[in-house]
Amino acid sequence: LPIKHHGAEITIFSEMTALAQQFGAVNLSQGFPDDDIDEALKKFLAEGTNKNFNQYAPSFGFPALIENLITFNHARKNPIDFTASEITITPGASYGIYTALSAILEIGDEVIVLEPAYDSYIPSIEMNGAKPVLVSLNEDFLPDFEKIKAAITEKTKAILINSPHNPTGKIWRKEDFEKLYKLIKGTEIIVISDEVYDLITFDNAEFYSIFHHAELRHRSFAIFSFGKMFHLTGWKVGYVLACEELTKAFRKVHQYISFSVNTPAQYALAKYLEVFNPEKNQQYLQEKRDFFLAQFKDLPFTFKEKSEGSYFQIASYENISDLPDKEFCIWLTKEYHVATIPLCSFYQDQRNTGVIRFCFSKRPETILKAAENLRRLV
Amino acid sequence: LPIKHHGAEITIFSEMTALAQQFGAVNLSQGFPDDDIDEALKKFLAEGTNKNFNQYAPSFGFPALIENLITFNHARKNPIDFTASEITITPGASYGIYTALSAILEIGDEVIVLEPAYDSYIPSIEMNGAKPVLVSLNEDFLPDFEKIKAAITEKTKAILINSPHNPTGKIWRKEDFEKLYKLIKGTEIIVISDEVYDLITFDNAEFYSIFHHAELRHRSFAIFSFGKMFHLTGWKVGYVLACEELTKAFRKVHQYISFSVNTPAQYALAKYLEVFNPEKNQQYLQEKRDFFLAQFKDLPFTFKEKSEGSYFQIASYENISDLPDKEFCIWLTKEYHVATIPLCSFYQDQRNTGVIRFCFSKRPETILKAAENLRRLV
Ligand SMILES: CSCCC(=O)C(=O)O
Ligand SMILES: CSCCC(=O)C(=O)O
Repeated sequence: LPIKHHGAEITIFSEMTALAQQFGAVNLSQGFPDDDIDEALKKFLAEGTNKNFNQYAPSFGFPALIENLITFNHARKNPIDFTASEITITPGASYGIYTALSAILEIGDEVIVLEPAYDSYIPSIEMNGAKPVLVSLNEDFLPDFEKIKAAITEKTKAILINSPHNPTGKIWRKEDFEKLYKLIKGTEIIVISDEVYDLITFDNAEFYSIFHHAELRHRSFAIFSFGKMFHLTGWKVGYVLACEELTKAFRKVHQYISFSVNTPAQYALAKYLEVFNPEKNQQYLQEKRDFFLAQFKDLPFTFKEKSEGSYFQIASYENISDLPDKEFCIWLTKEYHVATIPLCSFYQDQRNTGVIRFCFSKRPETILKAAENLRRLV
Repeated sequence: LPIKHHGAEITIFSEMTALAQQFGAVNLSQGFPDDDIDEALKKFLAEGTNKNFNQYAPSFGFPALIENLITFNHARKNPIDFTASEITITPGASYGIYTALSAILEIGDEVIVLEPAYDSYIPSIEMNGAKPVLVSLNEDFLPDFEKIKAAITEKTKAILINSPHNPTGKIWRKEDFEKLYKLIKGTEIIVISDEVYDLITFDNAEFYSIFHHAELRHRSFAIFSFGKMFHLTGWKVGYVLACEELTKAFRKVHQYISFSVNTPAQYALAKYLEVFNPEKNQQYLQEKRDFFLAQFKDLPFTFKEKSEGSYFQIASYENISDLPDKEFCIWLTKEYHVATIPLCSFYQDQRNTGVIRFCFSKRPETILKAAENLRRLV
């Protein structure tokens, strides 16, 4: 039977989580919290189903959720303003990225992807008949605009960016957006901006959305995730901002791919937005990052820089082993019972850089157990 | 900005539901029940989130749900047997159809679609770079294998079928599957079988799945819907059966499009499968169809045949008006406050046949109100 061959047989996240389970390892691989979620969220989900919000929501989103997202984003320290015609609720953020690509790509188009890159980007481009054009981030994992410029051709339909960045935790500076704008103004290139860690930033780092840029917002999709925002990765709800014209294009394909999103979950998320405290949330995550770094301080990993945002911290293991990235992760899972993600999985050519990614959005006891398991490395 | 142009700007279901709301009409258009769902489902959803099933489920499905689906389908009157490697849980059935197409289609492939056809089929084929080849069902809305045979070319990658059929309520006979097999054996054509109304059949009509056919099951996708099964269309969970090889191909693209499905919902559906009574469910729906037909008996619509399955009954309005289908539906919504779906929306060329579709999966008082509103037509 003739089938397609984009991407891995199984994602590195599924693979490492399964390996962690198999070996009873502490799972710092796939990005999800092991904390309990806020009781209010549970209460609101039950309330949604009990109030009979169990049939189709409107295809583009549950009205109260859209309304509360407009209010919430307007009230941010750095407000993101948009209208109800510029947003679509999606079954997760991966779906948001895929569907944005599907809405704009034609056969033979090119999309610039900055590596290291989240594993769904390249297959999602290819599945839509287009060609990923890979450009490396600079050695600080920030955009290198000379290299990006060199990658632009007549076929470049879009550029896919991500800040706060998975896996490196880097956050784009305000001037990076300005440079991006200078580079693509005068072209028709669309920006797809993966911003799922928008609310998880540390040490007062400023988050900028593509939607903060007065010009870029008219030619961009910005993708957000309730999974990351409220730490319920299993609920699979996200949202996509885009100017009215791009939102129209997005909704047109979305209505045929999944049509709508789980209604009781949308009800609960709408309610929770009214009580959610983003500062407390930020602090809660920063404490986790700091606790992780403190517990791992004496272990032989090298942390070149602290994560500026996201659930993740990368580390070099050059003082431990010269195994290739993935072999090292498998070895660490099997022998030391700590599962992580190899950086090579974020490169199309699977290049080895001696770096792995830890997910630190975990309970203190989970971090302590991982550090204890790795103590033998010293 | 360059965007795609497949399908309608807004689906006929969204359009008619919005029109119903605007005019305060009884909504018999979009297919969803207005009954309360079973209390047990609400209880299990609350239980799922309270037990902290709030993080990513495995990409291919929540293990207990897969297990219970195997048991449930084995216990059916006409058992459907499959293994855990032949099933994937999806965020709804539309997504299942889209993703099956995405898993197999290459640019330039052809897919045979039998009209009248559900509105997502053609755009989903086109969005995947392939070409829909349209074949009309016969005048009883059953497959015409001569016509299908004539439509097969070297480029035919798949045929998309649907039974029980939306919008006509027709159910394929056992011999239809045998004829389909005879037609495509010796080719590599894959069958995509939309079976979302599998549990909604009337007057003891037998439902046959493509998975019941010993040969076809090895080259087919069968798509199912919890929304239709348990009457919670807003939960957006479905499942897809396919042989191991096709399931592998399906999972490979699914893991990048949406990755996984709402975990608390999967928990609840798993639990509910243990108490669900399909016979009672069938009877509950049959009563709705019969109540609808009894209340509409004296109205000037012509019901050529009773619906054999699904939420729907089609009717000719030739004794009422000679407006085109869609204009008639709009007129009925505005002037008589009953919203329905025009059959023309199930044909790519929007052809008018003087037929509309009623959704009868509604409370008695809803049906009564609709019949009362239409009394003036007499
Ligand atoms: C969808 S599984 C991967 C989750 C995630 O965002 C990550 O681990 O990078
Ligand atoms: C996804 S909205 C359409 C629901 C449905 O199946 C129908 O009305 O035919």
